Amino acid sequence: MQFLSDNAAAVHPAVWEAMRAADGPQPPYDNDALSQSLDEAFSAVFGRPCAALWAASGTAANCLALAGMVDPHRGVICHQDAHIENDEGGAPAFYTHGAKLMTVGGDHAKYTPQAIDALLAPIRRDVHRVWPQAISITQATEAGCVYTPAEVAALGAAAKAHDFAFHMDGARFANAVAYLGCSPAAASCEGGVEALSFGFIKNGGMSAEALVLFDPAKADRLRHARKRAGHLQSKGRFMAAQILSLLRGDLWLANARHANAAAAEIAAAARQRLLYPVQANEVFLRVNETERAALRAQGFAFYDWGPDAARFVTAWNADASHVAALARVLSAL
Amino acid sequence: MQFLSDNAAAVHPAVWEAMRAADGPQPPYDNDALSQSLDEAFSAVFGRPCAALWAASGTAANCLALAGMVDPHRGVICHQDAHIENDEGGAPAFYTHGAKLMTVGGDHAKYTPQAIDALLAPIRRDVHRVWPQAISITQATEAGCVYTPAEVAALGAAAKAHDFAFHMDGARFANAVAYLGCSPAAASCEGGVEALSFGFIKNGGMSAEALVLFDPAKADRLRHARKRAGHLQSKGRFMAAQILSLLRGDLWLANARHANAAAAEIAAAARQRLLYPVQANEVFLRVNETERAALRAQGFAFYDWGPDAARFVTAWNADASHVAALARVLSAL
Amino acid sequence: MQFLSDNAAAVHPAVWEAMRAADGPQPPYDNDALSQSLDEAFSAVFGRPCAALWAASGTAANCLALAGMVDPHRGVICHQDAHIENDEGGAPAFYTHGAKLMTVGGDHAKYTPQAIDALLAPIRRDVHRVWPQAISITQATEAGCVYTPAEVAALGAAAKAHDFAFHMDGARFANAVAYLGCSPAAASCEGGVEALSFGFIKNGGMSAEALVLFDPAKADRLRHARKRAGHLQSKGRFMAAQILSLLRGDLWLANARHANAAAAEIAAAARQRLLYPVQANEVFLRVNETERAALRAQGFAFYDWGPDAARFVTAWNADASHVAALARVLSAL
Amino acid sequence: MQFLSDNAAAVHPAVWEAMRAADGPQPPYDNDALSQSLDEAFSAVFGRPCAALWAASGTAANCLALAGMVDPHRGVICHQDAHIENDEGGAPAFYTHGAKLMTVGGDHAKYTPQAIDALLAPIRRDVHRVWPQAISITQATEAGCVYTPAEVAALGAAAKAHDFAFHMDGARFANAVAYLGCSPAAASCEGGVEALSFGFIKNGGMSAEALVLFDPAKADRLRHARKRAGHLQSKGRFMAAQILSLLRGDLWLANARHANAAAAEIAAAARQRLLYPVQANEVFLRVNETERAALRAQGFAFYDWGPDAARFVTAWNADASHVAALARVLSAL
Repeated sequence: MQFLSDNAAAVHPAVWEAMRAADGPQPPYDNDALSQSLDEAFSAVFGRPCAALWAASGTAANCLALAGMVDPHRGVICHQDAHIENDEGGAPAFYTHGAKLMTVGGDHAKYTPQAIDALLAPIRRDVHRVWPQAISITQATEAGCVYTPAEVAALGAAAKAHDFAFHMDGARFANAVAYLGCSPAAASCEGGVEALSFGFIKNGGMSAEALVLFDPAKADRLRHARKRAGHLQSKGRFMAAQILSLLRGDLWLANARHANAAAAEIAAAARQRLLYPVQANEVFLRVNETERAALRAQGFAFYDWGPDAARFVTAWNADASHVAALARVLSAL
Repeated sequence: MQFLSDNAAAVHPAVWEAMRAADGPQPPYDNDALSQSLDEAFSAVFGRPCAALWAASGTAANCLALAGMVDPHRGVICHQDAHIENDEGGAPAFYTHGAKLMTVGGDHAKYTPQAIDALLAPIRRDVHRVWPQAISITQATEAGCVYTPAEVAALGAAAKAHDFAFHMDGARFANAVAYLGCSPAAASCEGGVEALSFGFIKNGGMSAEALVLFDPAKADRLRHARKRAGHLQSKGRFMAAQILSLLRGDLWLANARHANAAAAEIAAAARQRLLYPVQANEVFLRVNETERAALRAQGFAFYDWGPDAARFVTAWNADASHVAALARVLSAL
Repeated sequence: MQFLSDNAAAVHPAVWEAMRAADGPQPPYDNDALSQSLDEAFSAVFGRPCAALWAASGTAANCLALAGMVDPHRGVICHQDAHIENDEGGAPAFYTHGAKLMTVGGDHAKYTPQAIDALLAPIRRDVHRVWPQAISITQATEAGCVYTPAEVAALGAAAKAHDFAFHMDGARFANAVAYLGCSPAAASCEGGVEALSFGFIKNGGMSAEALVLFDPAKADRLRHARKRAGHLQSKGRFMAAQILSLLRGDLWLANARHANAAAAEIAAAARQRLLYPVQANEVFLRVNETERAALRAQGFAFYDWGPDAARFVTAWNADASHVAALARVLSAL
Repeated sequence: MQFLSDNAAAVHPAVWEAMRAADGPQPPYDNDALSQSLDEAFSAVFGRPCAALWAASGTAANCLALAGMVDPHRGVICHQDAHIENDEGGAPAFYTHGAKLMTVGGDHAKYTPQAIDALLAPIRRDVHRVWPQAISITQATEAGCVYTPAEVAALGAAAKAHDFAFHMDGARFANAVAYLGCSPAAASCEGGVEALSFGFIKNGGMSAEALVLFDPAKADRLRHARKRAGHLQSKGRFMAAQILSLLRGDLWLANARHANAAAAEIAAAARQRLLYPVQANEVFLRVNETERAALRAQGFAFYDWGPDAARFVTAWNADASHVAALARVLSAL
């Protein structure tokens, strides 16, 4: 019974179908009809003109976005638990040619304009110090929590006030939007987000994320950067097909709602053990060594989270009986 | 009737089948069973211990290889027509942090130890000059020609004499081996090649090339570099599946033989128009503006190659009737 | 009365004299006799074979050293107050092509093997995480304190145990050695330091620091990196002359002793206000806004250090009457 | 009798004097009064608002200029004999984070708009190809020749037409202006040059070149880049002093005229041996092995230039009797 990660779940049947349908003769790179339609598809999702580039990993999408925002001698503000800080093997520095990640704290892996102010306060603005040029937040966060539209907008206003660009790592953007019940735009660009890494791989896709730019004029430079990073696949039509199939009929939202519901069911069964509110598809629980061993003995797979906790992730295809079983066992612990 | 490029051809049914079969639960990144078996699979192909990493493009495979070979202040010798020089949007400089491509000439997009010597002769070895640290050749070349094992070995010996590493861009390695009729090792590592970008995408695959390292100890550093470049896909099992399905039963060779045979048929019909010997799956022909228009009017798709020539590429699934039609029309021109 | 910084003090007469004497015809770059003698001169200072490169700033010396120690995907452990972290405008990331500075805390801007262990503990060793490859300490520290030989050796042992390289930023190395009264080797290489940025500019020089490598075999690569950074000056003989004149007769130590004594005199007059022990030539004092205004009104120049403190730096040529005056005024505050 | 290079010549007495005069207490970095006056000084020289940054080498000045002009995925057009291509150890790629030098040919190390057109013609404008973003020329060239104002302007117009920036490597700009007898502006910014590396080290200075920006708004970013490259010296006042002393009373022009006259005298004595017109302070002569040995036996020092030629460089302090002796011997060869 798999609760390790959504990043290894199966591929949705509609995605397979779309990929098979894409196997006719098409021009290479992103000159095929599917790739060419991405801008329009995302413009419809967000209700404004967007440009969208496929990329084969969230790391690539995030780092391309940052590379388009910061000079090498500047910095990017992010949470100390951010994926770009902890889990991308130094990729942000590679893509930005050395820009500095400048971390702040905050509950639930979220941060606020106040944290930005506190970070900036002691930094003189001269050539000796690195000064930020962008902020990046994760939606949903690494703690499985969600920024409200108001929280996003507050950060967007702070970014604007400082003339910083605003990036959102949306590896689980679908789960955030499903939780919020708002429009995708309200959870992102309406709050000032300029570039969104819109995740599909954890949500039924195979190998395609979308980097969505709310200023389409910025796309040209990033298309060059993507090529230069070896991420312009010749048979890119198969990546576009994945994304388009998940956008169609809001399948991405349906998938995320399913995953979120499973997480909520688990959380409800272990309310007193929760490390963080469960707002997306991740459940962080206080469980000690013995309890974890007992869970594993009963067939549950999950990651330890430090010495006394564990992380359970539910995927778009979470099995109802597995979820119920976990909930039952947890409530009985 | 498509002769534009093999890089946009359909995906082989066996590849689709293997991908579908890979859709069970598996650990992410390259910890799945398929990815873990790549080293062994390539070791069998080359008859010696290899390490192999999947990568989503030939550019990524090439540039990771080079990044493992050269310091930023050194250079890479390549042909002036090489893909790394002309078609990768500056990716080699990105991955190597600025190492210099140092180009040489040579017929058929091939070069020789003599060309290396001529390049090196005027360069003083001091801190003011960039000195190479690797050589890179393309097999088959950008002109559709093939280095014999003896030619590879001569370059390997030259590289060794200068203490240069040796990379082979094998985007069409399959076509080269099919032409040579020798072992894959004879066409590469036996001649001194240390890292091979083994192409599958142009030969029936979808989105996976293999970077094969003949010194497995070098793999660890490149696995970090791959992650740092955003090329470590979470559902990497689908890439491994593509590669393994093409290796199985030497499907890669059968595919390449089919493509080569189609090119040979076209070449035979236009012998007096050939720019280069046809040894792989590309045919470069002298055809003027009027002739090209005539060909296109009859439904043939291909790229112009300068003002008075054209390139026809045959794929693993070249349609016999299309090939015959093209041959017929060309011989009648 | 100047207590702003030693980095703006006058140039020592012996340095001027040596520079004038260097103005004869000599080969350019570092092929002149003076530059060629640096290795020998530093080998004598440290009692072991050294290679030494001049560099025009401490930032350049530090960053060249780090560039020789770490791969771009690795990290460098340093104190959160370190110059490389706070005052070099992102230069370490530039020279190392993106390696990450990983900061630790510790009193007096010093850190310990325990801090290293605490930093490493939560980091999994896989491709997703950045793992350090070097440690860097500042001697004397940014708080004007000094690592004892035993403290250096403890860090050296920790570095060795983790297979990390060991860099020392010795912008004020002279002041540290003067304080310790030990050999230069005891304060650095005997404790495991592999590369030392040996500062001269703050200590009577004009524009030359020395990067001292205790493994001379490492010098060749750094000579290329220095050239590539535009730091190989054609009239480098004038930089070598500065360094050699300060080494001659241990002038560097005499200068540092003078500066340290002045700082000690100031510290003695304001013992209850000290933020840190005064072990080198910097005095950090608790003085409020009003007191600072009073000091400035009496002609003393210094930097504020946050809202309620100030930094006074004494130089190699600290004027005895100015120092006495400051001591007098401070004790009367 | 030294004719090796002007880059190792003595320092002019006026420079020494200005440096000594700069040794009073001053704020560090470029906050001293001398550094602060550079913009104004160069604005006077060029008759328009300029910003000017000192840098410790021509390589640093050139590469900072290029870093301000090109994105990492773009290129810089230069002559195949350019210093940035051949003699800077890969520094341009370091500073620009991998931008490509794209070389053209042309007599006397000069090139023309036609050469630019020929370079661009076969390059498709897409993400696969590197497209230039700047042009760079050397004034005087590596062959000791000078672009006329009209030639500069023609290149400037071509650059403008393509939306390329325009850099001039003026390591020997003084010699070029002295030869042309025109205003400094006519030889540079009036022809469209946007950034000029104005050389002083070869012309009586010690360790300071000036990077002159004809759009002062571009200076801020380069000041950060300079710091990040470790080129912001704390005692920068001594660099500013060198430059200002050479600008004063047009000493830079007087020095260059002296060097040029010496070269002209040598050229006149060996007219039939000249490889290139002698327009600045370098004389390239056809002299065979035996002749070179004979010259050296008589005490003349110079560099070989390939198997059958030699380069003689005259400096700002060329000794009249040495020059006459060389002329005499050459005419008698």
